[in-house]
Amino acid sequence: MSKTRVLTGITTSGTPHLGNYVGAIRPAIAASRAPDAESFYFLADYHSLIKAQDPARTQRSTLEIAAAWLACGLDPDKVWFYRQSDVPEIPELTWLLTCVAGKGILNRAHAYKAAVDKNRAEGEDDDAGITAGLFMYPVLMAADILLFNAHKVPVGRDQVQHIEMARDFGQRFNHVYGDEYFVLPEAAVDDFVATLPGLDGRKMSKSYDNTIPMFAPRAELKKLIAGILTDSRMPGEPKDTEGSALFQFYQAFASKEQTAAFAQAFADGIGWGDAKQQLFERIDAEVAPLREKYEALMAKPDEIEAILRDGAARLRAAHATPALLRLREAVGLRDLSQAATVEAKSAKKAADATLPAFKQYRDADGKFYFKLVQGERVLLQSVGFASPRDAGQRIAAIKSGEIGDGASDFSLGEGVTDEDVNAALAAFVAAQLEGEAGKA
Amino acid sequence: MSKTRVLTGITTSGTPHLGNYVGAIRPAIAASRAPDAESFYFLADYHSLIKAQDPARTQRSTLEIAAAWLACGLDPDKVWFYRQSDVPEIPELTWLLTCVAGKGILNRAHAYKAAVDKNRAEGEDDDAGITAGLFMYPVLMAADILLFNAHKVPVGRDQVQHIEMARDFGQRFNHVYGDEYFVLPEAAVDDFVATLPGLDGRKMSKSYDNTIPMFAPRAELKKLIAGILTDSRMPGEPKDTEGSALFQFYQAFASKEQTAAFAQAFADGIGWGDAKQQLFERIDAEVAPLREKYEALMAKPDEIEAILRDGAARLRAAHATPALLRLREAVGLRDLSQAATVEAKSAKKAADATLPAFKQYRDADGKFYFKLVQGERVLLQSVGFASPRDAGQRIAAIKSGEIGDGASDFSLGEGVTDEDVNAALAAFVAAQLEGEAGKA
Repeated sequence: MSKTRVLTGITTSGTPHLGNYVGAIRPAIAASRAPDAESFYFLADYHSLIKAQDPARTQRSTLEIAAAWLACGLDPDKVWFYRQSDVPEIPELTWLLTCVAGKGILNRAHAYKAAVDKNRAEGEDDDAGITAGLFMYPVLMAADILLFNAHKVPVGRDQVQHIEMARDFGQRFNHVYGDEYFVLPEAAVDDFVATLPGLDGRKMSKSYDNTIPMFAPRAELKKLIAGILTDSRMPGEPKDTEGSALFQFYQAFASKEQTAAFAQAFADGIGWGDAKQQLFERIDAEVAPLREKYEALMAKPDEIEAILRDGAARLRAAHATPALLRLREAVGLRDLSQAATVEAKSAKKAADATLPAFKQYRDADGKFYFKLVQGERVLLQSVGFASPRDAGQRIAAIKSGEIGDGASDFSLGEGVTDEDVNAALAAFVAAQLEGEAGKA
Repeated sequence: MSKTRVLTGITTSGTPHLGNYVGAIRPAIAASRAPDAESFYFLADYHSLIKAQDPARTQRSTLEIAAAWLACGLDPDKVWFYRQSDVPEIPELTWLLTCVAGKGILNRAHAYKAAVDKNRAEGEDDDAGITAGLFMYPVLMAADILLFNAHKVPVGRDQVQHIEMARDFGQRFNHVYGDEYFVLPEAAVDDFVATLPGLDGRKMSKSYDNTIPMFAPRAELKKLIAGILTDSRMPGEPKDTEGSALFQFYQAFASKEQTAAFAQAFADGIGWGDAKQQLFERIDAEVAPLREKYEALMAKPDEIEAILRDGAARLRAAHATPALLRLREAVGLRDLSQAATVEAKSAKKAADATLPAFKQYRDADGKFYFKLVQGERVLLQSVGFASPRDAGQRIAAIKSGEIGDGASDFSLGEGVTDEDVNAALAAFVAAQLEGEAGKA
């Protein structure tokens, strides 16, 4: 349990291109080899249904993308590699989280708001053409993450908000059902990841239709590279590396030394034809062995299917099924024959509930609050803090007796006196000591 | 397959009371004995999580309600009796439907709108305290129904809108994925179902706190009945049956003859004490044998658990698992090793798609439309009809050549001529004949 669990979702739409390779696949696979991580990689095919409604394309894309990651060295014996739709615990957890997720939070999701803004600009109804899938995406994503209690989720900056939502839903569930059921995940944003320009010089992206398929055959790869946009300087004229898509491309596939040599060639007036030939050779040197593996894998789709099923089966047995069982217990979806026992446990919990406790939560204003409660009674209510860490530090200070005279960052509950708070804190410390003695 | 499939969801919150018995359990069990129906009864425990966040209570309530239905004669060998959360295909289908459901439609759900109105009246944000569970409830309910291709869903008037939404989501899925995957369900509203007044004379309901538990022991039942609100007329004074909660109560448990005799006793000035005694005996005569069965069942919760698990296991094998497999195929969540075959099928489908076809759909204005399409091209677009039947009849007329000169209930697509439409209809008829020949 001391390993950091890192979870990465892989979009299963389109055909993998060199931009995917440089920006996602290559760094993720390098990270998967870190010895202190337990890594989860999944093909997010439920997510893909939000946009993709061509079933044959969905299937084909899933196959190609699975083959791409395997060809690039993802080792299913060392990491969890699975297909989202092979884990029925994910949609089930999605429903459990749906029941605690605040609708108001979903209203503020960037992707949803962008779609509404577009409708408004076009004079349409706010929700015209918007599916519930787009709206509920963050809850499914929270289930992906929380089911495995992932600590870190590597994402682009545009996805950070979704991780915050996953934290929020997890925290609400923990709060409503009164235990630390979920680890609250953190977004891991790498701002230094290489991005690749497309054929037209803009970022390579399916939506710009400027991509180079990752496993294009040699001849096609060469032809596509020949089509990369350059300026019109003649051979012999010095060329700028700054702003050159060709140079940026080369850099993404070359060592520092190789890149320096290529920059020198630019200064020396290399012709675009030669430069493109060098770029082609550099890319092909890296991609050719992957292409060979990819083609071998694509020739045996049944093996890919078997790898994915095996991954999901082992993962369900080790993580998903026991985790969901615990969550079903938490919400009350329980074996009916165990009713009596569980009610006795509830009674014990009710007794515990009369002990004072700090509850942390995030409110609609986005700030982080805490309160000290005893049973139904609120003894102390904090102001809003900017981060959960700030709130947590304040709690820690109060617990250790540093309430602070005339502190203005909390108020007392209705009819609560300083003595009540002091008594509760004393009881709190006593119960904690007792609990620790019980463990020893 | 000629049987009508009737599906009934049972709310698993609270303890069953006499109002539930008279208004829901008794008529539903009578209906379950109809020889021409295949009946589905399920404990809607995923739904209950939207409101209930007390796990022990959720579990207890599920047990009590399952025992109540069994005690009242629901026969798990003759009907499908299962617990929603034992069928993982339901949350999975919920996600598939989420991806086609229009968010704008969900905005208009009565329960959600009522919650928003309440927030507005209180000066709160529209969505304050509203969970995504309340908002998404209609999609889960659609999955409950569509998974089993239920024809009829007996519901109260307040639930009719949810059935219409289920039809809408089913129709959209059929349309997007190009086949009749789902039967479109119909609401069966029984306006003549008996309702029971509560202790205070209002409708008996948990939310009014005026209920009589269905399986209260004799002495408690007697005491509760003694507490039913009456007027202050003395014995010997004639009493009104009109507006008398006591009389209405009696009527719900008595034959016509017994009811007539009770009305006569009212006219003759029966004392309220005597009338309550007669009511108690009438109810107890019906409930006592059920109470005995209920108590025997509650003493063996493991048997109830076993009945529910067995019901779900058989139902999954017979219906849910194969149905979901077909739906997964439809959307493209497929065995990757079958990619080639499926693509060949898609090609066949694409060829078929160039044949003209009528598409029926419901638009945001609630009206029913159709269009005649050929590939991507729209040949003919109807105006909105009041019902799917009206639209269907119009299609049938057009198919049989009765387009009608100067008909004003459709318009031609952009650049489409009468000749195009006639040619398409001729091709349509030819393909149909060919298809029929192929079947023969």
